[in-house]
Amino acid sequence: MSIRIGIYGYGNLGRGIENAVRQNPDMELSAVFTRRPPESLKIGTVGVPVCHVNDVLEYKDKIDVMILCGGSATDLPEQTPALAEHFCVVDSFDTHARIPEHFENVDRAAKKGSNVAMISVGWDPGMFSLNRLLGSAILPEGKDYTFWGKGVSQGHSDAIRRIEGVLDAKQYTIPVDEALEAVRSGNEPILSTREKHKRECFVVAKEGADLERIEKEICEMPNYFADYDTTVHFISMEELRRDHSGIPHGGFVIRTGKTGAEGENRHVIEYSLKLDSNPEFTASVIVAFARAAHRLNTSGDCGCKTVFDIPPALLSPKSAEELRKELL
Amino acid sequence: MSIRIGIYGYGNLGRGIENAVRQNPDMELSAVFTRRPPESLKIGTVGVPVCHVNDVLEYKDKIDVMILCGGSATDLPEQTPALAEHFCVVDSFDTHARIPEHFENVDRAAKKGSNVAMISVGWDPGMFSLNRLLGSAILPEGKDYTFWGKGVSQGHSDAIRRIEGVLDAKQYTIPVDEALEAVRSGNEPILSTREKHKRECFVVAKEGADLERIEKEICEMPNYFADYDTTVHFISMEELRRDHSGIPHGGFVIRTGKTGAEGENRHVIEYSLKLDSNPEFTASVIVAFARAAHRLNTSGDCGCKTVFDIPPALLSPKSAEELRKELL
Repeated sequence: MSIRIGIYGYGNLGRGIENAVRQNPDMELSAVFTRRPPESLKIGTVGVPVCHVNDVLEYKDKIDVMILCGGSATDLPEQTPALAEHFCVVDSFDTHARIPEHFENVDRAAKKGSNVAMISVGWDPGMFSLNRLLGSAILPEGKDYTFWGKGVSQGHSDAIRRIEGVLDAKQYTIPVDEALEAVRSGNEPILSTREKHKRECFVVAKEGADLERIEKEICEMPNYFADYDTTVHFISMEELRRDHSGIPHGGFVIRTGKTGAEGENRHVIEYSLKLDSNPEFTASVIVAFARAAHRLNTSGDCGCKTVFDIPPALLSPKSAEELRKELL
Repeated sequence: MSIRIGIYGYGNLGRGIENAVRQNPDMELSAVFTRRPPESLKIGTVGVPVCHVNDVLEYKDKIDVMILCGGSATDLPEQTPALAEHFCVVDSFDTHARIPEHFENVDRAAKKGSNVAMISVGWDPGMFSLNRLLGSAILPEGKDYTFWGKGVSQGHSDAIRRIEGVLDAKQYTIPVDEALEAVRSGNEPILSTREKHKRECFVVAKEGADLERIEKEICEMPNYFADYDTTVHFISMEELRRDHSGIPHGGFVIRTGKTGAEGENRHVIEYSLKLDSNPEFTASVIVAFARAAHRLNTSGDCGCKTVFDIPPALLSPKSAEELRKELL
């Protein structure tokens, strides 16, 4: 029997889940839940009901795993615990500092409902976290580095859009090549924020706006840009739409360390991602972990889990025998 | 209390385990077992007993995890099942084709003794297998590629040494750059054996030996070299010792795949290793999985396991709370 998936929130991530489910023959999409009037929403899969979030509990026995596609700022801290009491759930909560608190809230609810709830699934947090853990467990005398990009940062693009005189903007986070090379050398360099990443901004300004002031406001914006080497390009709305409409991202997790009687041998473990679509890749990761959540729950487990808790075999549709034979 | 480790077989891998244990404060080396006369063996750790393999059962209650450091051809198929009945064990069995059979034998023995036995731990099989599994679970519509090197192949070096007139030799397996780039493009190329790897040999010949014949015998050796572009360099014994005494290795696991309503977005997941010492890195991986084996067994689990079965959190000495706070 297929794993029945529900999508809770139908933005970029929700659409990504819908496409990812279609790539996995052991899964089917059962319903999409939205805060908008359901009849106003056109989804990509024929025959799947679109429902209002208020009616979600009617689907309690019709969905195996509910995937929460809201934002980490205000949606997930409320939605994940609320739904984990009634469904197995997976979210992509990515506010690193608040993960311990979120875990506690979700764990309590999931155990109350005997469900498995996976939080912070995606690529960072998610696959990158997993590689940080693996690297540090294998090479305890070493150091790890995470680089992000080249990719679009939604938060930084939004920050530029709030500047007076800006019509639209796209910001790319770019790892500095020299920093990557220094890390790969195994010398365990200490790198400042500015040395690790640079920022490139494509900005559409209102006609007659003071471009010099806009550029200055961007480059001096605390937290977002002040600590980075930032380049600002002013372009037309047409160019922005033509050349910068994608949502690519990616990055690197590198662990270097030493072994040997006197630490004489160096090793470099590198995990990298180059993604045409950040939300679609995140969705693909989530769907694999939804499979694991369902299997864990079916075998009697419950509570909040992260990528650190999942035996990898549970992510694959293949049997343990097939995996050992074909992939080990 | 420390996890008490035993080393069964004291070659390159055994010495690597000894050094890796020293890097993990939650572990201690309890004994080394050898087929040689124990008094003839000098190990690197003061105060640790060296025992004959015949006395291994006397250590049944003094060792938490026995790490088997023998070869896959004849040692491990016998030793791992024999010892799994009495100890939790980890081996690095790497004859891919015989893994299912080895698994069955070890599983039976481990369950009889209520022990956890991990097989095929290292980097390939091991970390590379894990990345093949993760890649295929996340991007089901895609293809994965494994490249090995640049690194020393012991089997190929041995094959050259068996040629008449050869005193010593070292063989490097090298991934072909153009093939790596073609794979990273996401075009899912079909690559022949020759297109993926090339082989470079450093050979010390006997004085007066027929170098042309040796080179021909190497390049035409079926299975080992005939399907590859092979370069042979004749060097002096002094040069071989000076420039080729290390055992470096490494490689790449790359998964590319497509997502989106019409497969319009491409993604590249790449995991790579650059290792100064193949046996020491393998040992570092094994020691992390020995921790997991001990924890699983302590929590009541038993039977044969592979890297596919282990929740990653069990590999780290940190608590689940610390991992979520620091690495997620």
